[in-house]
Amino acid sequence: MEDIKVVSRALAGAEKTVLIGFPGSGLVGSIALQYVVEQMEFEQIGTITSKYFPPVALMTKGVINAPVRLYEKDNLVAVISDVPIHPTICYEVANGIMDWLAQFDIKEIATIAGIITNEPEKRVFGVATTREVLQRLEEETMILPMGSLSGIAASILTECKTRGIPGIGLLGETVNTPDPRSSAATIEVLNKIYKINLDVNPLLEQAVEIEAAMAQISEQVQKTETAPRREQLPMYG
Amino acid sequence: MEDIKVVSRALAGAEKTVLIGFPGSGLVGSIALQYVVEQMEFEQIGTITSKYFPPVALMTKGVINAPVRLYEKDNLVAVISDVPIHPTICYEVANGIMDWLAQFDIKEIATIAGIITNEPEKRVFGVATTREVLQRLEEETMILPMGSLSGIAASILTECKTRGIPGIGLLGETVNTPDPRSSAATIEVLNKIYKINLDVNPLLEQAVEIEAAMAQISEQVQKTETAPRREQLPMYG
Amino acid sequence: MEDIKVVSRALAGAEKTVLIGFPGSGLVGSIALQYVVEQMEFEQIGTITSKYFPPVALMTKGVINAPVRLYEKDNLVAVISDVPIHPTICYEVANGIMDWLAQFDIKEIATIAGIITNEPEKRVFGVATTREVLQRLEEETMILPMGSLSGIAASILTECKTRGIPGIGLLGETVNTPDPRSSAATIEVLNKIYKINLDVNPLLEQAVEIEAAMAQISEQVQKTETAPRREQLPMYG
Amino acid sequence: MEDIKVVSRALAGAEKTVLIGFPGSGLVGSIALQYVVEQMEFEQIGTITSKYFPPVALMTKGVINAPVRLYEKDNLVAVISDVPIHPTICYEVANGIMDWLAQFDIKEIATIAGIITNEPEKRVFGVATTREVLQRLEEETMILPMGSLSGIAASILTECKTRGIPGIGLLGETVNTPDPRSSAATIEVLNKIYKINLDVNPLLEQAVEIEAAMAQISEQVQKTETAPRREQLPMYG
Amino acid sequence: MEDIKVVSRALAGAEKTVLIGFPGSGLVGSIALQYVVEQMEFEQIGTITSKYFPPVALMTKGVINAPVRLYEKDNLVAVISDVPIHPTICYEVANGIMDWLAQFDIKEIATIAGIITNEPEKRVFGVATTREVLQRLEEETMILPMGSLSGIAASILTECKTRGIPGIGLLGETVNTPDPRSSAATIEVLNKIYKINLDVNPLLEQAVEIEAAMAQISEQVQKTETAPRREQLPMYG
Repeated sequence: MEDIKVVSRALAGAEKTVLIGFPGSGLVGSIALQYVVEQMEFEQIGTITSKYFPPVALMTKGVINAPVRLYEKDNLVAVISDVPIHPTICYEVANGIMDWLAQFDIKEIATIAGIITNEPEKRVFGVATTREVLQRLEEETMILPMGSLSGIAASILTECKTRGIPGIGLLGETVNTPDPRSSAATIEVLNKIYKINLDVNPLLEQAVEIEAAMAQISEQVQKTETAPRREQLPMYG
Repeated sequence: MEDIKVVSRALAGAEKTVLIGFPGSGLVGSIALQYVVEQMEFEQIGTITSKYFPPVALMTKGVINAPVRLYEKDNLVAVISDVPIHPTICYEVANGIMDWLAQFDIKEIATIAGIITNEPEKRVFGVATTREVLQRLEEETMILPMGSLSGIAASILTECKTRGIPGIGLLGETVNTPDPRSSAATIEVLNKIYKINLDVNPLLEQAVEIEAAMAQISEQVQKTETAPRREQLPMYG
Repeated sequence: MEDIKVVSRALAGAEKTVLIGFPGSGLVGSIALQYVVEQMEFEQIGTITSKYFPPVALMTKGVINAPVRLYEKDNLVAVISDVPIHPTICYEVANGIMDWLAQFDIKEIATIAGIITNEPEKRVFGVATTREVLQRLEEETMILPMGSLSGIAASILTECKTRGIPGIGLLGETVNTPDPRSSAATIEVLNKIYKINLDVNPLLEQAVEIEAAMAQISEQVQKTETAPRREQLPMYG
Repeated sequence: MEDIKVVSRALAGAEKTVLIGFPGSGLVGSIALQYVVEQMEFEQIGTITSKYFPPVALMTKGVINAPVRLYEKDNLVAVISDVPIHPTICYEVANGIMDWLAQFDIKEIATIAGIITNEPEKRVFGVATTREVLQRLEEETMILPMGSLSGIAASILTECKTRGIPGIGLLGETVNTPDPRSSAATIEVLNKIYKINLDVNPLLEQAVEIEAAMAQISEQVQKTETAPRREQLPMYG
Repeated sequence: MEDIKVVSRALAGAEKTVLIGFPGSGLVGSIALQYVVEQMEFEQIGTITSKYFPPVALMTKGVINAPVRLYEKDNLVAVISDVPIHPTICYEVANGIMDWLAQFDIKEIATIAGIITNEPEKRVFGVATTREVLQRLEEETMILPMGSLSGIAASILTECKTRGIPGIGLLGETVNTPDPRSSAATIEVLNKIYKINLDVNPLLEQAVEIEAAMAQISEQVQKTETAPRREQLPMYG
């Protein structure tokens, strides 16, 4: 039994840019990428399952989906997780994703995460695996002079560094509650560096609702019994 | 040594529908399917054992049986467990069952589980792996707009989704004690979608007895020493 | 490295009946079978060792022996353990024993265990893997209408059920201290169903001494350092 | 990666007697054998390392050595450990040693350990794997009528029993602090049964110093950080 | 999946001396070697990653790097870790490094670590795997008459001993906070035994700053969420 099982159709075409968002601080990465795939109508191409993931499935209008999913649109690929990854398995998960991607022609990997600063601003900090890659972020983000990154984002970027794949980290300044405003700030950076041109206003307009909904789901995910949410609550507009 | 060992004769015929019931909230799934296999006189065709299961055996009139069992009648298959599955092994158990089923021609999988709402109603909520499959449930169940499902039912449905097998979840509204009334409500849905025509009145009539008996067995299962129950207590009529 | 290592000479002849006794409630099984093998002068034919067993060895008159042992006399085989088996490894131990036995012609397996009822009687409850096998116990034991069995005895009987080997469980009514009187009651049932004709009076006469000795050894087994017992105490006659 | 890695030159010649000493109660075994190999000028022929051992190295006059070591002189082999073996890995360690020894012609294995009696005497109790082997100990040791042995010494002797290799256990009466006087008593038994003729007076004369030094090292071994001992303290004369 | 994954270009040339520094007591080893590789402009040739390491990446001016890295300059190789190694995996990590090095012509391995003495001096204690190797340290370090070493440094030196590779340990006297002064003292020894001629004054001049910076990073590494440090703080001049 494989530790990390990727079931997906193959990526189409070459020079793919892979966007990765897991629910860390402020759920910045998963909220941002869920918004991207829904608004830009990415196609779901697969799932990632693992004995290491909690046994959880999310339902939207009665249709369930795997908690970690693969999407694709044109030269963009998205990896989105509804479940947080425990520190002890970040290495396995990062390698499982990277081993699967290694079959295709990957141009760059960008991981979106939150970074807690306890300040009200919504800046985006940029890190990269090399100085050359970092240059593209210098105008769009704040460069961290020194610091440490942990969790699945650190494992993904360490693997990019080790495997020689250009890797970018966009760290949205956040607090420790669901934070669509920080997610919107990271999408603005994606807009600039990847020419996505995605309007973040719907996300900002629904920030209050989303914060409530995400907090509620996040709480449910941590229970071991089934738990419904009956309010008809549109997630991203 | 295999993690999950299925010992069974092969399923007979094609287009099998598989009913799965594990003892989660309210023991809804296991009470419902135990009633189905006894009343409809399914044949036991095998057992599932695993190093991950607690070392427990139930006895009925002096005859012991394995805690996880396979039954068959016509185009219906039932997987019933007397033991709850710990969250850390749901992935392995779900994959063990699905890998074994993969040898046969499976039309659909329906997992029965409980969902705690802390309300007195006994509604049945429906979820499915795709919108097409869900359509068949729209008249018979309430569709959950949003929520999360956890435990072995989530793992089974995630595997259905990943493997492209039509999957249904019937979630009986329940409280956190053995709940044959919720089980009866899920059987009413099975009656409609699979034309089973099973009378649930005997189950409802014995609800009080069953609640007491199941609570007692459930308690015993959690002890590590042998523990008898001497009252002659008919379980399902 | 095998999980469960059986080192033994092969069983001689066919149609073997295997008696199994592990120290569960009241140490009923291990006291009963130790008495059987000593009084009937079974020959020790092997040992079972495992990384899962505690690192313990018992000494009798200066000669040490492995804590789990195999004995044989005529068509009877005995498996006796001085160490209790932790619930998490019952599956492995039961399968290790059954896999080894599978090489030979086994007619039936009878596991002796205790069952706590908190009543002063010393009845023996009978369970079996099928109704046919159970019939032979109906006159000699009380049949349990419903209940659960746990621990290594449950794992052994579940494996018998799964593998289609006739299996019997004799559950001696006991309290949670070493109980040679309950062991004697199970031997009386063995006398009847296997025509052993073993006099249990010496066991009953020494009940007080044995209770004290077993309690003391049981306590020592749970310590991690070496611990002698210097009184010259005859165990079984 | 092997669980237990023996790196050693092969044993020379035939009919080897293997002395084994691990630091159990009173450190009786390790103090006794360390004295034997130093006084009799055994040659170190190898090391035993394992992922199961704590990451510790002892230094003598600036030269480090592995915590578990193999020595040889003439027909004697010694296995000495500075680190205690946790109960959960005794089986693996005993089998690792026995598997390695199985390549050579082993006449007998003698394991030296402590046995706590809380009495001031320094008797030596003798156990063996068979009655025949035990006869040689009857004059030199006290024979234990009944009792239990635990830890690595129990695992070694159980393996001797299982593999049919003559095995002896010399259990020095001790308290739960480093006890060179008990070690000396076990060496006196070795003197008689193996004709070693080793003078234990130097060991007895330095008993007070050794007790202090061993207690101090033992304490250090349990810390996870580096810890020196700067006093120039001769260990064994 | 390998336990310890070394991704590196091959070492160039023969007779390599390998310097190893992990963050133990006072972070003596990692501060010393980080200073060496930066001042002497070693080239980074690879990374070591493992499922056993915490999922952490350090960033310098926005560029992330793996927490365990390989460097080379002329006949010197350096292995530097930003993350401490848990005692339970020191064996695996030491063997992973040694197995990789075994492909090349290694002359000697020197591991730098701290040793807590709770004294204000900054002496360097020397240990080695043999008396011959130790002779080269006798003038430059204090030789420890007796004591124990633990952690990854102990595992590295035990493997050197077991594999017959000359091994040196330089233990800088330190307290339990980041201690660049102790690191400087160990570099002075490296200067003498390897003719490195590295000026430690810049390290000493920035000791106060470094102590603060290292303490802060060390604290961050232990958190599981992303954590930036925004002050522009030059680490080593």
